[in-house]
Amino acid sequence: PADLRLAVVAGDGIGTEVVEQGLLVLEAALHGTGTRVATTDFDLGARRWHATGETLTDGDLDAIRAHDAILLGAIGDPTVPSGVLERGLLLKLRFALDHYVNLRPGRLYPGVTSPLADPGDVDFVVVREGTEGPYVGNGGAIRVGTPHEVANEVSVNTAFGVERVVRDAFARAAARPRKKLTLVHKHNVLVHAGHLWRRTVEAVNAEFPDVTVDYLHVDAATIFLVTNPSRFDVIVTDNLFGDILTDLAAAITGGIGLAASANINPDRTAPSMFEPVHGSAPDIAGQGKADPTATVLSVAMLLEHLGLSDAARRVESAVASDLAERGSAERVRSTAEVGKDLAARVAG
Amino acid sequence: PADLRLAVVAGDGIGTEVVEQGLLVLEAALHGTGTRVATTDFDLGARRWHATGETLTDGDLDAIRAHDAILLGAIGDPTVPSGVLERGLLLKLRFALDHYVNLRPGRLYPGVTSPLADPGDVDFVVVREGTEGPYVGNGGAIRVGTPHEVANEVSVNTAFGVERVVRDAFARAAARPRKKLTLVHKHNVLVHAGHLWRRTVEAVNAEFPDVTVDYLHVDAATIFLVTNPSRFDVIVTDNLFGDILTDLAAAITGGIGLAASANINPDRTAPSMFEPVHGSAPDIAGQGKADPTATVLSVAMLLEHLGLSDAARRVESAVASDLAERGSAERVRSTAEVGKDLAARVAG
Ligand SMILES: CC(C)[C@H](C(=O)O)[C@@H](O)C(=O)O
Ligand SMILES: CC(C)[C@H](C(=O)O)[C@@H](O)C(=O)O
Repeated sequence: PADLRLAVVAGDGIGTEVVEQGLLVLEAALHGTGTRVATTDFDLGARRWHATGETLTDGDLDAIRAHDAILLGAIGDPTVPSGVLERGLLLKLRFALDHYVNLRPGRLYPGVTSPLADPGDVDFVVVREGTEGPYVGNGGAIRVGTPHEVANEVSVNTAFGVERVVRDAFARAAARPRKKLTLVHKHNVLVHAGHLWRRTVEAVNAEFPDVTVDYLHVDAATIFLVTNPSRFDVIVTDNLFGDILTDLAAAITGGIGLAASANINPDRTAPSMFEPVHGSAPDIAGQGKADPTATVLSVAMLLEHLGLSDAARRVESAVASDLAERGSAERVRSTAEVGKDLAARVAG
Repeated sequence: PADLRLAVVAGDGIGTEVVEQGLLVLEAALHGTGTRVATTDFDLGARRWHATGETLTDGDLDAIRAHDAILLGAIGDPTVPSGVLERGLLLKLRFALDHYVNLRPGRLYPGVTSPLADPGDVDFVVVREGTEGPYVGNGGAIRVGTPHEVANEVSVNTAFGVERVVRDAFARAAARPRKKLTLVHKHNVLVHAGHLWRRTVEAVNAEFPDVTVDYLHVDAATIFLVTNPSRFDVIVTDNLFGDILTDLAAAITGGIGLAASANINPDRTAPSMFEPVHGSAPDIAGQGKADPTATVLSVAMLLEHLGLSDAARRVESAVASDLAERGSAERVRSTAEVGKDLAARVAG
C-alpha cells in the first residue's frame, strides 16, 4: 500500500514508551520507499476503562478494522481487576479480528546472553493457535464464594480452527531450510482435543510431504527448550500451551525484552496485530527503562506481513547489529536511546 | 507399621528396572529398623492390557487399597493407544485413591550439572493438585473425523478441592525456613478457575500469617524457573500447570533421571503412591541405561510419608553423596550398578 494505515494501541504501562520507539524505527524503515505511515491512536486500556468503563466498543473495533495493521504496546494494569482488560480488550481484538496464527519467533541473536550454559543455535518459530482452546472464555462458576463453589473452564477445539493453523504452520515449515514441524500437546491426558490436533497434523502432512513431523507432550517440550532448543524448527500448538512455551522461549533467547510476536489473520479479512510478547510492566513504567527491541522486531514482522520485505530485513539487521554490540557497551541505554540508535542503523 | 505392605506397580518400559533398584534401596534403608517390607506385585500396564484388555479393575483397586503405600515405576507404551493407560491406569489410581497432593521437589544437588549457566541454590517443592483441573477426563467430541468436529476439554475446579491442596501447601511452606508460597495460575485468562484459586489462597493465608504469598502467571513462572529458580520455595498450582512446571523444574535440576514425586492422600483414606517423574522411556528400556535415582528419591519420600524419617534421611544422604561424586566417575554405571551403590551407601 502507498499509505500504510496503522492503528496504534499503545495501551498501558511501558506500552506507550516502546510503541513510540517502534514507530520511530518504522518511519526510518519506510523512508525512501514511497510508502508513508498514517497512524491512528486508539485510547484503549486502563485509563479509558477507569474513565468510561469501556474496554473495546463496537465503534472502536469498526474503526480499527479500517486499517492495514495494528501496532500494540501492552495491555494490563494492577488497578484494573484481573481479566477485564485481558479478556475485554487484548483477547477480544485477537478473537474479533480472527488472528488465528499467533507467530512467535524464538531466536538467539549473536551477542545475546542466554541463561542456558550451552544453548547452541536457537532459531525456531512457534505457531500458536490464537482463537480457540482454553482462551475462548467458555468458563463459568456456581456458588461463588461458598464452600460449594465449582469453577469450570472449557477448552474448545474445532476441526476448522485446528486445520487452518496447522496448515499455516506446515507452509512455514516447508519454506524453512530444516522443514521440521513439532506438534506440542498433551494427547495422553486431553485425549479429545489432543487427538483432534494429532489427526489433523497427520492429515495435513500429506499436503506437505517434505516436512518432517514429530510430537512432544507439552511437559517434555519444556525440557527440550532448556536442554536442546536447537532441535526445534517450527512448533505448532494450542493457545494455552503456546502462551507458556513462548515465554519460556523468550527467556532462553535473552528475555521478553527481545521477544516479538504477530497476531496474524492469514485470510486478510481484518488487520493483523503486532505486539511485543512482554506485558505492561507497571513496576518500570515511565522510567525509560523498557527495552523497545521486542516492539521493533514486531515492527519487522509487520513490514514482512505487508509485503515490505526489504524494509523488514533492514529492521532485523539493525537489531542484530545493535544486539551484537550491546555486550561491549559501557552503559545501559534508555528506551528512547535504543530506539534512536536502531532508527539510525535502519537509516543506514 | 512393623510390616510395610507395599503395592508394587512396576509398569512399562524402564519401570521394572528402576523399581527393582528402588526396592533394593528400600530394603537397605529398613535393615535393622524392625520394619519389614512385604511387597505385592501388580501386573498392570501394556502387557496386561494387550493380554486382557484391562487397565485397572475394581478388583485390582481393592487389592491395592489393602496396602500402606504404592511404588510405581512408569506407565505408557507406544503399542497402546495414547491415553488408554494414562487415563485408565495412572490417572485412575491418582483419582480413585484421592491423591490430591502431588508433591514434586525441585532441588539441585551439589555436583549435579544444570543446563542453566548460573542456577544458584535451587531448593523448592511443587505442590501440584492431583484430582481436578483439566485432568478430570471431562471432555468429549462430536462429529469426530469430519470437518465439523468439535473437541472440548473441561477443567473442573472446586472450592473443596482447591482449598485442601492449598492448605497442605501452606502447611509445607510454614514448616520451611523461607516460609514462602507462590501460587501459579493464569487468572487473567482462566478467570473463573483462576479467581477461585486466588481467593482460596488469600483466605487460607489468614491461617498461616507467617507465610509470604506471591502470585505468578504460569507463563511468567517458566521464565523465573530458568532465570531465577532460587526465588521459589513452595509452589502451589493446578494439575496441568503442575505437570508442565515440574518437568521444567526437573530439567533445570539435572533432568528427569533425578526427579522424584509423591502422590499423597493426606487424609490417609487410601495408600499414597510414589513414582519417578519420568516416563517409561521405551527407547532405552531393557538396556540397563535408566537412572534409578528418581525412583530411589521417591522411596525416600515414601519412607518420610510413613513416618520413617531416619530411613528417609539415610536414603537422601546416600543419593546426595553419590551425586556429588558422579562428576569424577570414570564411566557411566548401569541401572543395577547405581542401585547397588546407593544401597551400599545406605547400609554403610
Ligand atoms: C496478557 C495475556 C492475556 C496474554 C496471553 O495469555 O495471551 C499474554 O500472556 C501473551 O502471551 O500475549
Ligand atoms: C503420563 C502422564 C499422564 C503424567 C501426567 O501428565 O501427570 C506424567 O506426565 C506425570 O507428570 O506424571
